[in-house]
Amino acid sequence: MRDAYHQELDALSEDLVEMTRLVGSAISRASTALLDADLTLAESVIAADDAVNALRDDLDRRALDLLARQQPVASDLRTIVTSLRMSADLERMGDLARHVARVARRRFPESAVPATLRSTLVEMSQVAQRLVAKAGSVIASQDVTAAMELEGDDDEMDRLHRALFTALLEPGSPYGVEMAIDITLVSRYYERFADHAVSVAGRVVYLVTGQRAEELAGSS
Amino acid sequence: MRDAYHQELDALSEDLVEMTRLVGSAISRASTALLDADLTLAESVIAADDAVNALRDDLDRRALDLLARQQPVASDLRTIVTSLRMSADLERMGDLARHVARVARRRFPESAVPATLRSTLVEMSQVAQRLVAKAGSVIASQDVTAAMELEGDDDEMDRLHRALFTALLEPGSPYGVEMAIDITLVSRYYERFADHAVSVAGRVVYLVTGQRAEELAGSS
Repeated sequence: MRDAYHQELDALSEDLVEMTRLVGSAISRASTALLDADLTLAESVIAADDAVNALRDDLDRRALDLLARQQPVASDLRTIVTSLRMSADLERMGDLARHVARVARRRFPESAVPATLRSTLVEMSQVAQRLVAKAGSVIASQDVTAAMELEGDDDEMDRLHRALFTALLEPGSPYGVEMAIDITLVSRYYERFADHAVSVAGRVVYLVTGQRAEELAGSS
Repeated sequence: MRDAYHQELDALSEDLVEMTRLVGSAISRASTALLDADLTLAESVIAADDAVNALRDDLDRRALDLLARQQPVASDLRTIVTSLRMSADLERMGDLARHVARVARRRFPESAVPATLRSTLVEMSQVAQRLVAKAGSVIASQDVTAAMELEGDDDEMDRLHRALFTALLEPGSPYGVEMAIDITLVSRYYERFADHAVSVAGRVVYLVTGQRAEELAGSS
């Protein structure tokens, strides 16, 4: 059986996984609120972000407390410092889901997403959910190979981000300035959400191997 | 005279101040590149971001090394953990300056900024530069009162951000979708740059007082 100190370290990791669940749910529900112009759902996503922030604050407090009390070295130290970085990524992902919900709220009762761009936004939402689910699995499993795979999903997000701009800029496209602003912001939020998920996975790679994901990718 | 350990702690703070100088220069030059459609300047800002990243990597490596070797407690521990967080903010500010330069490069030889929005963008650039300069001073001085003032400058940035959207959306405004996309992205980059500067100052408040800037502001 693990001693109390190592149980506390394990609890950090469990709370990070819980954060991935919360922000995964947040981006999923924010996407539905955006696509269906659902004000009640948008409001609930905005309100729920407080729980993510509270979990992060609690996690950080405990991580700092472990640093101060246990004076960890080597891999334990790396676990704690990495936890602090992952909690920052995950908290930011919660903010970005809330930003998506805010765009839905601002445009209500209209939808911020025109019918012709709907399928691209649905895909962005799916990629975002897949990335954060994988990031959660990778935190739990510390599977470096799985962690390295997130970069590929992120390429898909970048492709969708560019596809939206191409659609907005197509000659004779029916989209006005207001829609262009909304879609640009929303697309940027999804892209950043994905970046942070990749960052979380990259931190697991560093935690396990002591090397950065880019270095490992370069040497393979 | 300070011992070697405390000299190393001081050096972290000096490097953070140096990072504020580099990203301050980057946002200033990126703004000029954007406003004057100066491709050479834009390229030089994009290339110079490597130096910010390298400084951050070196700073983080030394901070982690101090954590492992010195097993610091109390205020020294807080200094090191806070340094890691400030370096993340400052590196991101460098990225955002590079993003502004990239918009300038993408639109060259045209300017991404129409004449009528120029003065607002100039103001945004000035506020960004003021914020990062103050963040640098605050890191060096650890002046909590000065740190708390950054929130006010950030309100100014939020006002400019909203003013740009209002101008883009004015009935009969001459701005097309392409310009709306560019201005939306650039405005978002400045806004986030400012947020990170405020975050740096807030970390100094926490470092000195053990309380968060919001808590202190609420209790005053």
